[in-house]
Amino acid sequence: MTKVVAGIDIGGTFTKIGIVDQAGKVYADDSIALDAQSSIEKYLKDLEASVRRLFDESGENMEFAGIGIGAPMGNYYSGTIEHAPNLNWGEVIPMVNMIEDRFSVPTAITNDANAAALGEMMYGSAVDMKDFIVITLGTGLGSGIVVNGNVVYGHDGLAGELGHVNVQPDGRHCNCGLRGCLETYVSATGIKRTVFELLARRNDPSELRDIPFGELTAKNISEAAERGDLIASKAFGRTGRTLGRSLANVVALLGPKAIFLLGGLANAGDLLFKPVQENLEINLLYNYKGKVEILPSGLSKGNTAVLGAAGLAWKEVLG
Amino acid sequence: MTKVVAGIDIGGTFTKIGIVDQAGKVYADDSIALDAQSSIEKYLKDLEASVRRLFDESGENMEFAGIGIGAPMGNYYSGTIEHAPNLNWGEVIPMVNMIEDRFSVPTAITNDANAAALGEMMYGSAVDMKDFIVITLGTGLGSGIVVNGNVVYGHDGLAGELGHVNVQPDGRHCNCGLRGCLETYVSATGIKRTVFELLARRNDPSELRDIPFGELTAKNISEAAERGDLIASKAFGRTGRTLGRSLANVVALLGPKAIFLLGGLANAGDLLFKPVQENLEINLLYNYKGKVEILPSGLSKGNTAVLGAAGLAWKEVLG
Repeated sequence: MTKVVAGIDIGGTFTKIGIVDQAGKVYADDSIALDAQSSIEKYLKDLEASVRRLFDESGENMEFAGIGIGAPMGNYYSGTIEHAPNLNWGEVIPMVNMIEDRFSVPTAITNDANAAALGEMMYGSAVDMKDFIVITLGTGLGSGIVVNGNVVYGHDGLAGELGHVNVQPDGRHCNCGLRGCLETYVSATGIKRTVFELLARRNDPSELRDIPFGELTAKNISEAAERGDLIASKAFGRTGRTLGRSLANVVALLGPKAIFLLGGLANAGDLLFKPVQENLEINLLYNYKGKVEILPSGLSKGNTAVLGAAGLAWKEVLG
Repeated sequence: MTKVVAGIDIGGTFTKIGIVDQAGKVYADDSIALDAQSSIEKYLKDLEASVRRLFDESGENMEFAGIGIGAPMGNYYSGTIEHAPNLNWGEVIPMVNMIEDRFSVPTAITNDANAAALGEMMYGSAVDMKDFIVITLGTGLGSGIVVNGNVVYGHDGLAGELGHVNVQPDGRHCNCGLRGCLETYVSATGIKRTVFELLARRNDPSELRDIPFGELTAKNISEAAERGDLIASKAFGRTGRTLGRSLANVVALLGPKAIFLLGGLANAGDLLFKPVQENLEINLLYNYKGKVEILPSGLSKGNTAVLGAAGLAWKEVLG
């Protein structure tokens, strides 16, 4: 019997599902569209059908050992999804109970950044690390913090919100209600805001002057920077400086061995990694200088989220 | 047989020693002066004599089970004291090995703030907590971070440097070589600097105008504030604001149940605690508002450091 788990990544528009063994082999995977208007009951029915079908497709002599779920605002302790802004299911969804009712296997949930950290620890570039941090740079900025081999969930299960650390008193408005949060500067959305600030402040010509805010993407900006666009290059420099400085603070607190940058904005590669590493180094406390690496994910791109959720499942199954 | 440990707190001028059982009862204690010029061998000889004498004084039927040491720059993993600025013993002192050679009992070392956190968890107001933070406000600002019931040592054993988180780009010069570190604003020294900044900026009369920098103490400032001195009151308000804001960032990252303020400056009580709690609350992420307590130590004042070191010893002995 080969033991496998289901890794389930619930995003704002799609849910990705994979059947994964302990070594990280994906036997079958699929994604189901998330209809924003559909009820949680309808969603769970579709999800169950998909997981059972994928398990059957995975081969014979398989034992279904557990389920791990990565979801925005997934709370590890309570097993719930709390106030997730992009899901239309109500205030607090007891997701773990609902899934265990249907599958009768150990199930755990956490947010997507924590799941990414578990994936990196189980299958990626953090297999030998006990203290590291994963930063996901998408629409917002998520973080998964690993201390002594365990994800930091905090007293209430929702820790790891580096995106809402203040970097500028009375700074940019954030969806969370505060101002000056890191993710308003460092994320796909944050760099767009920086581009528009630079376009307003400076006179330099830029191909980005032809793109409205609603259509501008991090990819546009990185492509423009690759072509030598000054505004785009400066936007990456500023983004990297802000992130590097913030990470120096995190290092002083937690002393990680490495910090991984994942997600859409991290695809910009050196455009982002270089200023981050430089500004981290300048601001590091003396005993950390030259010792903390900024790394890309060690997981293959398509499966990152599913492997993270599977890593959570394995962590539960193996204890 | 009653099992006891020795808690040893190595400060800049005195070493405090106590013989402590698992319940926190102190059977005997003493302090030995630290001659800045004396060698490590001389110091260890004095320390050994003192520990053995105190153990003998503790009573009959005692079993000596372990030793815990709190010391500036004490590294839990390597068992060393590294580059401690106030100790004249050389670069890296293998303190744990040296002590174990003399006593042949399990010995551990960590910095004073981590030891304080262990004391609070074992004997103080954090006995029921698994996620909390201890801030020591003395000449500098130290922090002990507890996550899931364990002190965060980080990859290299020296984590927990909240004092060197940046709160002001190009801000005040810090002994560590960086600028704008939290401890240059929030510590006994930091509030003195704030008083002098306010005396320079404002015209208000103040009793603090008669005290030179070298003689001014946190106690002077808190007594002046109690008497209604505007400059002193404003200095506490600013100190509390800076600390409250920084703690909101720490909460977003780590989600602790409580934050303890210890040390000389914390003796100012409401003068400090009130603005800290207010500014923490204003800057907290929505899901933490109203949920994080700012608390004083639950340990009796004279024994805090020794109980912390003893807590470390017990944590080692009990595994």
